[in-house]
Amino acid sequence: MSWNKVAVVGAGLIKMGELFEQSYEQMAAGAFDAAVASVDKGFEPHQVDAAFVATQRGTLWGQEGIGGNTIPTAIGLAGIPCTRIENACPSGSDAFRVGAMAVASGVHDVVLVIGVEKMRDKSSEEGLLSRAAAGHPIFTRGETAPVLFAPFATRHMHEFGTTREMLASVAVKNHYNGARDPYAHFQNEITVDDVLKSPSVCHPLHLLDCCPQTDGAAAVLLVNAERVREFTDKPVYAAGFGVATDHPYLHEKDSFTEIKVTRMASQRAYAMAGVGPGDIDCAEVHDCFTITEILDIEDLGFFDKGDGGRASLEGDTSLTGRIPVNTSGGLLAKGHPIGATGVAQITECWWQLRGEAGERQVETRNGYALQHNAGGRGSGVAVVNILTNRTDTS
Amino acid sequence: MSWNKVAVVGAGLIKMGELFEQSYEQMAAGAFDAAVASVDKGFEPHQVDAAFVATQRGTLWGQEGIGGNTIPTAIGLAGIPCTRIENACPSGSDAFRVGAMAVASGVHDVVLVIGVEKMRDKSSEEGLLSRAAAGHPIFTRGETAPVLFAPFATRHMHEFGTTREMLASVAVKNHYNGARDPYAHFQNEITVDDVLKSPSVCHPLHLLDCCPQTDGAAAVLLVNAERVREFTDKPVYAAGFGVATDHPYLHEKDSFTEIKVTRMASQRAYAMAGVGPGDIDCAEVHDCFTITEILDIEDLGFFDKGDGGRASLEGDTSLTGRIPVNTSGGLLAKGHPIGATGVAQITECWWQLRGEAGERQVETRNGYALQHNAGGRGSGVAVVNILTNRTDTS
Repeated sequence: MSWNKVAVVGAGLIKMGELFEQSYEQMAAGAFDAAVASVDKGFEPHQVDAAFVATQRGTLWGQEGIGGNTIPTAIGLAGIPCTRIENACPSGSDAFRVGAMAVASGVHDVVLVIGVEKMRDKSSEEGLLSRAAAGHPIFTRGETAPVLFAPFATRHMHEFGTTREMLASVAVKNHYNGARDPYAHFQNEITVDDVLKSPSVCHPLHLLDCCPQTDGAAAVLLVNAERVREFTDKPVYAAGFGVATDHPYLHEKDSFTEIKVTRMASQRAYAMAGVGPGDIDCAEVHDCFTITEILDIEDLGFFDKGDGGRASLEGDTSLTGRIPVNTSGGLLAKGHPIGATGVAQITECWWQLRGEAGERQVETRNGYALQHNAGGRGSGVAVVNILTNRTDTS
Repeated sequence: MSWNKVAVVGAGLIKMGELFEQSYEQMAAGAFDAAVASVDKGFEPHQVDAAFVATQRGTLWGQEGIGGNTIPTAIGLAGIPCTRIENACPSGSDAFRVGAMAVASGVHDVVLVIGVEKMRDKSSEEGLLSRAAAGHPIFTRGETAPVLFAPFATRHMHEFGTTREMLASVAVKNHYNGARDPYAHFQNEITVDDVLKSPSVCHPLHLLDCCPQTDGAAAVLLVNAERVREFTDKPVYAAGFGVATDHPYLHEKDSFTEIKVTRMASQRAYAMAGVGPGDIDCAEVHDCFTITEILDIEDLGFFDKGDGGRASLEGDTSLTGRIPVNTSGGLLAKGHPIGATGVAQITECWWQLRGEAGERQVETRNGYALQHNAGGRGSGVAVVNILTNRTDTS
């Protein structure tokens, strides 16, 4: 029996990319407008009771402490409660969960969740990821994001025979999907050969194994399930969610062939939604690197441990495969504007469950879509949200 | 009829001060231990279902993205969901609200809220407040926290005849109270003359009109009201809460004699709790500067607009006054470790409503205590929480 106390009645995003010409507030406003416009029976902005903003930007642009609470003013809703949610790469996913709990609590009936991030306005040295990498003075020496994930790739190759071609097939698939997503940062197809011959970043990860630095914003509108018919006759519900935390540093990991928090968070989400991995029709997962998607599809239970590379290479996760993964293009092609990423993934799930994903549309015969992010030095936290269009479980 | 769906069954803090010898994680662990130890019928750490961490620290110490999610590991609870809540100076207050909604949603029965902040490890120039002050390249030129509040003081003096002695009386009272609070940063009494003769910071605010830079941590344990008797026979409930946002920059303010967000947030909290200002027995309010407390006690409805200075000078807010304010010593004496501040204020309210405030104990004949923070360039956001020991309303 799914949770289904909260419905998603609107969702939207702005075109991801290098958005030097847009301010942080402009990006948020663009996403909000898109979400409002998507509500089937119409939505007036003043109907929003409270907002949650996922962002890490406060860190860099002198906005610490006002990165969340200036958003209401920027979108014409000065006065409403607004709270910043930060939880590393899953910030947007967690803001969705917190917003859903705020609705389910009965305190707020209509909640806006906005994810927004500027990644490109500062150089890499001054940027968000280098700051995040500063951390512990010893454990994090020389640490960059590729450095955090490369050992998982080499170990997976060692234990299971995973190849660079298998890794590359993830990037090829996600670029294929991104080329069909008008909101994706990169909308060009690539080949396995392109990935293999792209510059090495940190063995075995090459440039096209890595997601880009992307600016972007996304927004969703949540309402109390009892009021959903005021807004739409095609409801999508939050079926369940789960979060898990772990030690953030690599030297404390139990294993380099799984992201433990992904497994734990998904188990919690499946239990809450009353479903299992076999019930999921499609998934948006955290593919910050190609190896990450291979780990994800195993740790989420879609494939046996060690089988993720083969499954990717053989098309099991393509638009027409057994379980389509990252139909939006994923972080690899759509981009990874940190606070916005999870909210944008939820938007893709919403479109898929409503049959509105255009060229990317997949079959959703069970009526469940899953969304997943991991982060916090790569594997310190994960969030999984499960959405459904099934009303028989509400 | 108060909300009363969520009970506070434990609360505690560490001694505030310059805690160079303690890490961020150690401070959080100290506060958690204090909260656990305070539960009447005992509490096992593993009973915590989820945590919310209020902090702004991620900004400075290279912990962006792991400032919240490393806390479970640090306190022996690796694995549990943990989310960072950031909302400027009211971060801790808002984390309490979010934690309460998580419990009321039915998703988590037992929630830990921790506030923690290191303010002293870096110099003022590198520090949190200077970074927060960076902001807009034009509107924030030369802006420091005293600069944000001084215009409110001069205008209040101009319109209502408020005097420097009236401002000083707030600092004198709060230091008197702080001298009776073993957790306060400053535990020494001061005189009006001390305040008047302290160095000028930004006219009319002198050094002793300003709160210090303080390290600290505080924690509270929230449970579903239906389960409160497992933990205590002296329950305290979240009766109601409210949040409001506004433009963050001074040039956009409608008025310099009120903090609008404080008025709006308190009206929402009163409505939710089904009480008015006259029902509040004691209050912890945001006295980052002496003028701020004078504005607060007016904007919260305890005194008429313009009467806050007189009321302070004449002792209406002292431990034996009509409505005791900042019995803990307030930000001025107890300190203002940003993420921890609101959680520490809630702890003081909890002690007062349970009759456990020692020398600082006041009469709580109505059974309601109010807690308030404002922030985000001083007046961009406010949060008000109302607690009650009344069980007849639950």
